[in-house]
Amino acid sequence: MDFWSLFVMDFVKQLQSPTLAFLIGGMVIAALGSELVIPESICSIIVFMLLTKIGLTGGIAIRNSNLTEMVLPMIFAVIVGIAVVFIARYTLAKLPKVKVVDALATGGLFGAVSGSTMAAGLTVLEEQKISYEAWAGALYPFMDIPALVTAIVVANIYLSKKQAKSAVLESGVEASEDHPSTQQEYRDQQKGSGNSRVKIWPIVKESLQGPALSAMLLGLALGIFTRPESVYKGFYDPAFRGLLSILMLVMGMEAWSRLGELRKVAQWYVVYSVVAPFIHGLLAFGLGMIAHKFAGFSMGGVVVLAVIASSSSDISGPPTLRAGIPSANPSAYIGASTAIGTPVAIGLCIPFFIGLAQAIGG
Amino acid sequence: MDFWSLFVMDFVKQLQSPTLAFLIGGMVIAALGSELVIPESICSIIVFMLLTKIGLTGGIAIRNSNLTEMVLPMIFAVIVGIAVVFIARYTLAKLPKVKVVDALATGGLFGAVSGSTMAAGLTVLEEQKISYEAWAGALYPFMDIPALVTAIVVANIYLSKKQAKSAVLESGVEASEDHPSTQQEYRDQQKGSGNSRVKIWPIVKESLQGPALSAMLLGLALGIFTRPESVYKGFYDPAFRGLLSILMLVMGMEAWSRLGELRKVAQWYVVYSVVAPFIHGLLAFGLGMIAHKFAGFSMGGVVVLAVIASSSSDISGPPTLRAGIPSANPSAYIGASTAIGTPVAIGLCIPFFIGLAQAIGG
Amino acid sequence: MDFWSLFVMDFVKQLQSPTLAFLIGGMVIAALGSELVIPESICSIIVFMLLTKIGLTGGIAIRNSNLTEMVLPMIFAVIVGIAVVFIARYTLAKLPKVKVVDALATGGLFGAVSGSTMAAGLTVLEEQKISYEAWAGALYPFMDIPALVTAIVVANIYLSKKQAKSAVLESGVEASEDHPSTQQEYRDQQKGSGNSRVKIWPIVKESLQGPALSAMLLGLALGIFTRPESVYKGFYDPAFRGLLSILMLVMGMEAWSRLGELRKVAQWYVVYSVVAPFIHGLLAFGLGMIAHKFAGFSMGGVVVLAVIASSSSDISGPPTLRAGIPSANPSAYIGASTAIGTPVAIGLCIPFFIGLAQAIGG
Repeated sequence: MDFWSLFVMDFVKQLQSPTLAFLIGGMVIAALGSELVIPESICSIIVFMLLTKIGLTGGIAIRNSNLTEMVLPMIFAVIVGIAVVFIARYTLAKLPKVKVVDALATGGLFGAVSGSTMAAGLTVLEEQKISYEAWAGALYPFMDIPALVTAIVVANIYLSKKQAKSAVLESGVEASEDHPSTQQEYRDQQKGSGNSRVKIWPIVKESLQGPALSAMLLGLALGIFTRPESVYKGFYDPAFRGLLSILMLVMGMEAWSRLGELRKVAQWYVVYSVVAPFIHGLLAFGLGMIAHKFAGFSMGGVVVLAVIASSSSDISGPPTLRAGIPSANPSAYIGASTAIGTPVAIGLCIPFFIGLAQAIGG
Repeated sequence: MDFWSLFVMDFVKQLQSPTLAFLIGGMVIAALGSELVIPESICSIIVFMLLTKIGLTGGIAIRNSNLTEMVLPMIFAVIVGIAVVFIARYTLAKLPKVKVVDALATGGLFGAVSGSTMAAGLTVLEEQKISYEAWAGALYPFMDIPALVTAIVVANIYLSKKQAKSAVLESGVEASEDHPSTQQEYRDQQKGSGNSRVKIWPIVKESLQGPALSAMLLGLALGIFTRPESVYKGFYDPAFRGLLSILMLVMGMEAWSRLGELRKVAQWYVVYSVVAPFIHGLLAFGLGMIAHKFAGFSMGGVVVLAVIASSSSDISGPPTLRAGIPSANPSAYIGASTAIGTPVAIGLCIPFFIGLAQAIGG
Repeated sequence: MDFWSLFVMDFVKQLQSPTLAFLIGGMVIAALGSELVIPESICSIIVFMLLTKIGLTGGIAIRNSNLTEMVLPMIFAVIVGIAVVFIARYTLAKLPKVKVVDALATGGLFGAVSGSTMAAGLTVLEEQKISYEAWAGALYPFMDIPALVTAIVVANIYLSKKQAKSAVLESGVEASEDHPSTQQEYRDQQKGSGNSRVKIWPIVKESLQGPALSAMLLGLALGIFTRPESVYKGFYDPAFRGLLSILMLVMGMEAWSRLGELRKVAQWYVVYSVVAPFIHGLLAFGLGMIAHKFAGFSMGGVVVLAVIASSSSDISGPPTLRAGIPSANPSAYIGASTAIGTPVAIGLCIPFFIGLAQAIGG
């Protein structure tokens, strides 16, 4: 069979996989007005267990494997994380009615990684019996943190430049006056120039301390330094798919309820949210193929890298960005990510990149 | 052995089954003043998982089975759901100190189905190794919705007739006056007559959108249209009995704590709550036997139909009835159902109907 | 190999066991400022499931075993529970800046048992493939309740004696006056003497009704009187280690966050909290060895008895003590137990006593 018929067949088959089916099911029942609610506390323990499990898998794999083969994919993960922000800077930010800081925050969120999307990708790969490196989940922070740091740094440099410029204009007009408002602006400008030397470490620290990443890093550390195999095989691993199905349902319902928020901001966010996951994923897929040719990175691993790139952060990213770029509009970047970016990444990009890998590799 | 010794032995053996033992245990520790509390969020996720699992079981079964064999049991489920309301109308409602609307709401709740009771019934059947049709759980909405709709429609017809009658009486007395209170009554009467053309669709919609039924229907749809077998076998199915044991404990404790509410209303509710589950169950058992003789419905399936009929709704029913018959007293119908109806259905009717089926069938 | 090298090797190996690793992991991520939070409702359902499982194990074991072999370990459990309070009375209470009632409450808490610590001990024993009596978990209440009762009774006798003495002194000075404040003191004294006849039954009842003990006793009763094997093997037993790992993480984080509270009270509490678990455990270990020699109590059982003794109550004890000795300072006894006593018991005493048992027995 040719590339496209293989691809389309695979795509349809994957929409029937439990993981994607629950996501679509969540959107459908939310659209039908269901009053079903999964309690918040259940969602947080599920996220904890999924990410601890991904961390444990990675940690146990790292303990038993050759670290040098991880180097190239890790470097590519960092490159993609940074590139995604600059893509948003030179595409989304240039569009009419889109503010530069909002575009940068959105880029940061789309460069950051969604643990749930990654979990869905790993699970669909397993359901399709496509093997991948067990440490692939550990690529998460290498894309997540650079994206968030880049977004915040670039946004603050932009803001301080803009303020410096407006301060120059104003100082020409109001130079002779000793007006309090000018003093205020001067102080802001000072603060602005202070911000231009954005402190990177607090952003990194805040990302690492967030619930999602700290659960994953805890699992990673326990996997590397202790012997958690019994509890991994008896609990975290078997519960994984089932818990993921509940989370997918919640994310489907959430995506539907967030659609309204998106309508309040420029329509370009909708276009970006649909297209960007594919662009980012293809960039990562291409880099992954280089690692596949030259460093023996598996095709399954290439898909994982592409899925991580196409995902946009839903848990850890938003609070970090809210603190790092307070002037950006959360309903723009959170709406774009949760209502469109995540369902597109899970429901379309995962089957797309698996189909692509199978059509190329098979 | 004769019928009765078989029946009694079976009854005692079933009280030792984990499902019933946890229900009784819950009542005992509540009676002893235990401060044990199962958090509300845990109860809702358990209900979600149980009903999703029942839906998935049904959906997978329907996908793989002959739909025509479901027709007769479904019709009987609808008949029982409607009949239960009329039984309440012509027994409970005629008793002294019992208001007609309260009796109708109670009838609606006893005709509606409890997902937990059904789950308990299916589990005890499995523990006793009695086979039943896997789609039997899908009979749930076919009894649940007709019962709620009938109760609300009959109650509103009753209320509007009563109001019309009292309006006629009053208009004779106060016809010449243009008194505000009469206007108020006139508007109420108008509203009443408006209500006599009760809109059935909103009641059906509200039932379907409730958390219990929408979880079950979601499972049903996913079972029919997707391939959830992996997550079903690895998660929903193995967790079922254990989660049910926790829910049974909660229902036992709840039943004990609701006993006080019942004392506030007429004692006849207590009599009704003890007797009705058996009457409704026997009616369904009889109809089920017809399906057994003429359509090959299994004896296990007959027990499921009888258990569904003997159960009274605890989750989805009360809010629907509160909205549909606002003048009915919730402490009457909820107290009757939760404090007596549910423990009787689970603790007595399940063993009773299994014993009956075994004594007849064996 | 000699005793010490065996012991040290074993100790290090056990710190890598999942149970202890998650405890240490929790302390580390709390120290690093992680924002990970395990919801309160999840913790309570985990505690419920762990203690129900321990109860079921014990109940099923008791149903299938010879009760006479339980008598000696039970008597020793009671002796240790009472002795621990008197140890605190004649050591901690004599230290400078330590109030007698605070010391007695602390002794009561360290004599009472932590279900989580016991669960950790049983799990590490299984991980090390050391067998123990299945009913060993049922020793819990035989140490827990005597310790709490003794602490409250001794504290109240002490308080009433002190009040009687001060009343005598004051009555010499203010005998002729009929001053309201004296009347108040007289009433207090009366109340004090009333308290000296402390009612023991309410304390026992309150302990038994607490969420931890009532879950365990429920499991015990269900294990003895019903047939919960299917739900035990399919749910409570397999989930046990995994749920415990989450609880250990929470306890590690909790211990770290409670360290601050300890600094507010006398430094002697820190010394006591580190030393006492070993003293209590060694006392129980010695008594357990007597049962080992004369009644065939297994070495694993001796370790369980020692671990129960070295544990200090974290769930059921504090509220009982707060009600029973209201004048004691909770930040003293809860801080000492949660921040130091529990991590020492789990992280140091469990490996210590297992190492001791293996060095002696092997």
